[in-house]
Amino acid sequence: MHTFKELVEDFGAYFGKKHFPASPATLYEPGEYFLSWGGKRIRPVMCLMGNEMFAPIVADAYHMATAIELFHNFTLIHDDIMDEAPLRRGMETVHTKYGPNTALLTGDVMMIQAYESLAKISAQYLPRILTLFNKTAKEVCEGQQLDIDFEKMEDVSLDAYIEMITLKTSVLLAASLETGAVLGGASEGNCRHIYEFGKNLGIAFQVQDDYLDAFGDPEKFGKETGGDIRQNKKTFLLLQALQQADAAQKQELQQLMRENPADKVPRVLAIFRACGTDAWANELKEKYLNTALKHLDDIAVMAVRKKPLEELAAFLIQRDY
Amino acid sequence: MHTFKELVEDFGAYFGKKHFPASPATLYEPGEYFLSWGGKRIRPVMCLMGNEMFAPIVADAYHMATAIELFHNFTLIHDDIMDEAPLRRGMETVHTKYGPNTALLTGDVMMIQAYESLAKISAQYLPRILTLFNKTAKEVCEGQQLDIDFEKMEDVSLDAYIEMITLKTSVLLAASLETGAVLGGASEGNCRHIYEFGKNLGIAFQVQDDYLDAFGDPEKFGKETGGDIRQNKKTFLLLQALQQADAAQKQELQQLMRENPADKVPRVLAIFRACGTDAWANELKEKYLNTALKHLDDIAVMAVRKKPLEELAAFLIQRDY
Repeated sequence: MHTFKELVEDFGAYFGKKHFPASPATLYEPGEYFLSWGGKRIRPVMCLMGNEMFAPIVADAYHMATAIELFHNFTLIHDDIMDEAPLRRGMETVHTKYGPNTALLTGDVMMIQAYESLAKISAQYLPRILTLFNKTAKEVCEGQQLDIDFEKMEDVSLDAYIEMITLKTSVLLAASLETGAVLGGASEGNCRHIYEFGKNLGIAFQVQDDYLDAFGDPEKFGKETGGDIRQNKKTFLLLQALQQADAAQKQELQQLMRENPADKVPRVLAIFRACGTDAWANELKEKYLNTALKHLDDIAVMAVRKKPLEELAAFLIQRDY
Repeated sequence: MHTFKELVEDFGAYFGKKHFPASPATLYEPGEYFLSWGGKRIRPVMCLMGNEMFAPIVADAYHMATAIELFHNFTLIHDDIMDEAPLRRGMETVHTKYGPNTALLTGDVMMIQAYESLAKISAQYLPRILTLFNKTAKEVCEGQQLDIDFEKMEDVSLDAYIEMITLKTSVLLAASLETGAVLGGASEGNCRHIYEFGKNLGIAFQVQDDYLDAFGDPEKFGKETGGDIRQNKKTFLLLQALQQADAAQKQELQQLMRENPADKVPRVLAIFRACGTDAWANELKEKYLNTALKHLDDIAVMAVRKKPLEELAAFLIQRDY
């Protein structure tokens, strides 16, 4: 068994190579540029962890983990085009550096490269893995489309928002774990529980992310807070505040969103607090985290095999802000 | 055995259904819109023909053919974004009707849908099919990138142009036939020949397409001619004319391309003719067609089984203009 940190290091070394042919460089260099930024590689590591919960890590799990990381990076490249984001993690996005057409094709070919890695998986597992991967990939696209749709809508229900977040981010975390588990020989029941663990952990993480963007300590959070509020981004907090606010609060909130005054962030935060949105978000996060941990608990393996995923949950979901 | 036309009708009926879930409609309706236009469905029919050359058509061949047609349509949707094409076959392109972000995602999810169809193929064939499909898909992206690159370059060699055309269009025709042949139980040698038949036929078709756009009879060609010349598109004809022209002709050609006068098309055509580009293109087309037919000849099945592919070649490559 390996710790989460050991696997991050292990996969980082494995993945830190060229992924594309040299030519045509106009197509493949932008892909290498984007992949070279490194990162935590959380999804592929979750795949390795899903495998190792049930058996020593097999070569197929590295092919699977590679496919997942390439697919994730494809979504980032295309999302950045759609969001017209000039920077990601302080680096020029692919479409900024190379133009939108090349970024579009770079994303396309990175998705195909993900399937090329999948094609290396043993024939006995390939049909099941391919089916789960395709289902997940479609869901991620659905989530991205719902995100675009919601930004244009006046009213989005909390349930619809949770569905969007689940599709856009959580199902890939869930499938990372489940594909690893499949390759580790896990039973159907265990596969279902590890998938649900990942899915609920992902939702808890997203609630936390929204919370920290509003209420987090910038030093601990690692980036400036209030960005979502400044951009009028629909978040768990805003949707809940709009539901809980009285008429006067709602009117003030909508006016702040329309007029963007200099003191917008502290004034929106004051309304969030007055509506109890901060405590509510913490409860919601705990609810999803607990559901995740319940599914982890229900996996039929010895407790010691669950330690790395417990570590992962503790790493992703902080309990002191 | 079925004729090409019978299979076009057969596949048209099979493919003419909904391909996506109903929801979210904002993502899936644009895909259905694009697929509903119909068309010859040449690539998937080639897949069925590749199968039927060796054995009665199996269910897997329909899954394969569907994957190929979905993949082809994905490339069209993304190419239209890159080309900023407002119309295709007289219909509004997806990005014109639904916006570029939705067109981007619609293309992405259509590619995934192609892989979903592939995932239905019997496990015994899946690894080989997936590997060939991935290789081809990457090559199509490479061809598109080279096409973009070439439009910005002053000098493109004929060899480089043929390589671009091969990647952008011919390899998918070739892979359509070969995947069908694989599913029909063809030997390695026969698979290689049917692939080369498709590849060379595709190049011959593209030479003809460039020729007809310049010299074709608009009534027989079915669309206005001279479009490539008006747009200064690098075609087989232009590249060859630039190589064969004397200094005065080359200067005039470059001036016409720069200044776009009203009589540009007839004057460029006159230079093409003076350089012998029309006869040269016909010879080049014949060369690739003959190479294709030689590979068809070399396939080790009874002559009667080759009839449909001979018909296809005759349908695609006309000998009277």
